[in-house]
Amino acid sequence: MLSALRSRLVRMGGLALLTLALGGGDWAGAKSTRSSAPALDPADAALRDQALASDLAFQLVASLTNEVGARPAGSAGNARAVEWGVATMKRLGFDEVHTEPVTVPHWVRGENSGEIMAPWPHAAALTALGGSVGTPEEGITAEVVAFPTLEAFQSADDEKVRGKIVFLDRHMERTRDGRGYGETVPIRRDGPAVGGSKGALAVLIRSVATGSHRLPHTGATRYGDAPKIPAAALSVPDADLLAAEVASGQPVRFHLKLTSRTLPDETSANVIGEVRGSTHPEEIVLLGAHLDSWDLGTGAIDDGAGCAIVLATAKLLAGLPHRPARTLRVVLFANEEFGLSGGRAYAKAHEAELGKHVLGMEADLGSGRVWGVRAATSPAGTDLLKSVARDLGLEWNETPADGGADLSPLEAARVPLADLAQDASAYFNDHHTADDTLDKVDPKDLAQVVSSFAVLVSRVASSPTVMGPAPEAKPSR
Amino acid sequence: MLSALRSRLVRMGGLALLTLALGGGDWAGAKSTRSSAPALDPADAALRDQALASDLAFQLVASLTNEVGARPAGSAGNARAVEWGVATMKRLGFDEVHTEPVTVPHWVRGENSGEIMAPWPHAAALTALGGSVGTPEEGITAEVVAFPTLEAFQSADDEKVRGKIVFLDRHMERTRDGRGYGETVPIRRDGPAVGGSKGALAVLIRSVATGSHRLPHTGATRYGDAPKIPAAALSVPDADLLAAEVASGQPVRFHLKLTSRTLPDETSANVIGEVRGSTHPEEIVLLGAHLDSWDLGTGAIDDGAGCAIVLATAKLLAGLPHRPARTLRVVLFANEEFGLSGGRAYAKAHEAELGKHVLGMEADLGSGRVWGVRAATSPAGTDLLKSVARDLGLEWNETPADGGADLSPLEAARVPLADLAQDASAYFNDHHTADDTLDKVDPKDLAQVVSSFAVLVSRVASSPTVMGPAPEAKPSR
Repeated sequence: MLSALRSRLVRMGGLALLTLALGGGDWAGAKSTRSSAPALDPADAALRDQALASDLAFQLVASLTNEVGARPAGSAGNARAVEWGVATMKRLGFDEVHTEPVTVPHWVRGENSGEIMAPWPHAAALTALGGSVGTPEEGITAEVVAFPTLEAFQSADDEKVRGKIVFLDRHMERTRDGRGYGETVPIRRDGPAVGGSKGALAVLIRSVATGSHRLPHTGATRYGDAPKIPAAALSVPDADLLAAEVASGQPVRFHLKLTSRTLPDETSANVIGEVRGSTHPEEIVLLGAHLDSWDLGTGAIDDGAGCAIVLATAKLLAGLPHRPARTLRVVLFANEEFGLSGGRAYAKAHEAELGKHVLGMEADLGSGRVWGVRAATSPAGTDLLKSVARDLGLEWNETPADGGADLSPLEAARVPLADLAQDASAYFNDHHTADDTLDKVDPKDLAQVVSSFAVLVSRVASSPTVMGPAPEAKPSR
Repeated sequence: MLSALRSRLVRMGGLALLTLALGGGDWAGAKSTRSSAPALDPADAALRDQALASDLAFQLVASLTNEVGARPAGSAGNARAVEWGVATMKRLGFDEVHTEPVTVPHWVRGENSGEIMAPWPHAAALTALGGSVGTPEEGITAEVVAFPTLEAFQSADDEKVRGKIVFLDRHMERTRDGRGYGETVPIRRDGPAVGGSKGALAVLIRSVATGSHRLPHTGATRYGDAPKIPAAALSVPDADLLAAEVASGQPVRFHLKLTSRTLPDETSANVIGEVRGSTHPEEIVLLGAHLDSWDLGTGAIDDGAGCAIVLATAKLLAGLPHRPARTLRVVLFANEEFGLSGGRAYAKAHEAELGKHVLGMEADLGSGRVWGVRAATSPAGTDLLKSVARDLGLEWNETPADGGADLSPLEAARVPLADLAQDASAYFNDHHTADDTLDKVDPKDLAQVVSSFAVLVSRVASSPTVMGPAPEAKPSR
């Protein structure tokens, strides 16, 4: 195995010289080399091709979505998903398959309905935000006051919103890197708390979404210390309609009814399995995804696809002629969606061995094709990942990796992280809606993601490169 | 006006000669000339350009969908839509605006829900078919038996389906001409009657649809003399899921609950307005669309867009320097969706003057761009329409025009018909669903449809061509 590593390093050195000769080195400009992967060595090319030809990941996400389906934290579906995870890891032949208990909240959506009452009556397609309190049994009927942004709402006089239903009408931009989500999601996360503190009766948001279907997008909200008021998302066409009614200049009245409520906490689990390293089993490459989903769809893109990607990646690498030197640890996290319970529990339970985590990665963006690589590692680790990006014909992206939400609790320990940046152009059409179903996963795209994971993880797991620690400075999440 | 007509005829003769010189004449092969419209005379080109630059049609469909919204037969929304139609025609300056009473059925959807109970439990997104009876209050729970086509169901032993819930799992093909709809719709129209006659407890169909969203597609079913059993459509992803459960080979159980029911008939109305002809006002070019919609969406593509197209076309032609010689009669029909009540009532009420209907056209395919022309007219009428197709750069399609559903009751009287064939590739993604909303109407495409209607109607309405009678033989509808 060591000689194989040595020959790989020699080869990489050669490529580095070639790159210098070509005037390369600025990998942020690697776009033009993306269409071919001239530098992929034969073993990696074979691994990539095997991944591209395999439908294992698609079969896994089909199994999870068809046989289990919706699996929100605390639900019966979630318990079945944990059983599915254990059984699947065992079936795939993983080592050390076990669960670790995680306490999770148990919020239930109940019945959600609403209607615009005036000036032009319409039934409204809406859904409660995750964690929302319910309305009184008779619902809430009040005048609507609209704001285009959270900032405009925050700076409004309390008197303007007291006793009203507030409508936050911010639109989300569609981009390949999905940054529009992060830019828009504060209306969902923080809007209801702002509303509660200002004396509003309820908050409605335009779905944080790029699609345009009558299927509203849920997602977690957090009240903090603010008075808890009911909060719901309107589908994009319904938000358009409410905006048109507001724009008419006539008083707009809305009726909202939610029977959502929070039940006592439940115990769920992180599901963990390993492909033990051949020569450095104590060094861990962590491959994460989250097993929970929202309740509305069957959790195919969020995050059945991610579970399938990391499971299929580990299975592929377990079958290589030379097993990776380092251990691959697959973790299917509990309750990412409503408070990162699984990620926090993992960081705490494994605190003592975080120094042995040579890399952490998460798959949580559906089946969007991989276009780039980002890192938050040591300089040597970054050099290695740059070489992988180049060899796979992927763009190098200077934005520091964030590793995915479930790995964010590892940041304090400076665990090295990498992201395979997936195309997010379509992801936010269906994410957190009833439309998150198997047909939204493209089998070919999914195989491309697995192929990228497999080659990158193989390279890191068979390299002696010291990947950490990650740089201390991180952008705020 | 007569001299204008004469000069137009001279010009058309000249074009016919030019066509011969170019070896033309087979207009079915006109595809290659579609990208340019070299033969459009200046007045028609100006009319086309005026239509393309106008947002009148989009403003009209926005007004109907925002201010009225869902307007199924018999509903309060339908009554508001009739008021909207009258007010809009008056506002546009039409002559002879009036309503004609139409008796319509009043079916109400009620609450519709269902779930796959075994082997893998899932909530199911479904909706009752129009006209369906309800289930008992406790719902219906039974084993599922699936058939890929209506024919396979029809030929199955009654014993195989008695006491079962039948699942008709036929897929619809996506085509530009929308023929996949006609090929697939028998499962919806006739499947429940077949089920009733065979002793099934209920019928579920895969939505007759090209889209893939958790928004099921409703549409009328008819029981005839068969026992009435509850009937519902599953959304496409839910049909995929049920098919996967059936394919597992395990017994599949389903629970269905519908509170749908039929109330006493109501009186609605056809809304009629004219742009009176300048020299031959007794000759009528009929422009139809239907004012009713299904209840789930706001009826933007079906058929708010059609209402807007015919209203905008008539308004544009009313504003020409020379008003058309013949009368344009815009009819917004009552209740197309659930039995063609308005179309039948019009044919009966206007029986005596059907011989004066020189052409009938309907717009009922959303805002899909016009790509072709079809006719069912006299040979002279067909020659005129072929010249219009050529001049507009549209394909000539040899399939006989059907004029649209509302005009089908006029066929017996051999009223000449024309179709401007619209691109149906996307129409059946959203048709008959909650997703039939304003955002599905493309303003630019809609203006292109109006431009085609305006030029064609202008040519026919200002021509002395005897357009009828239509050929007797018609393909069965």
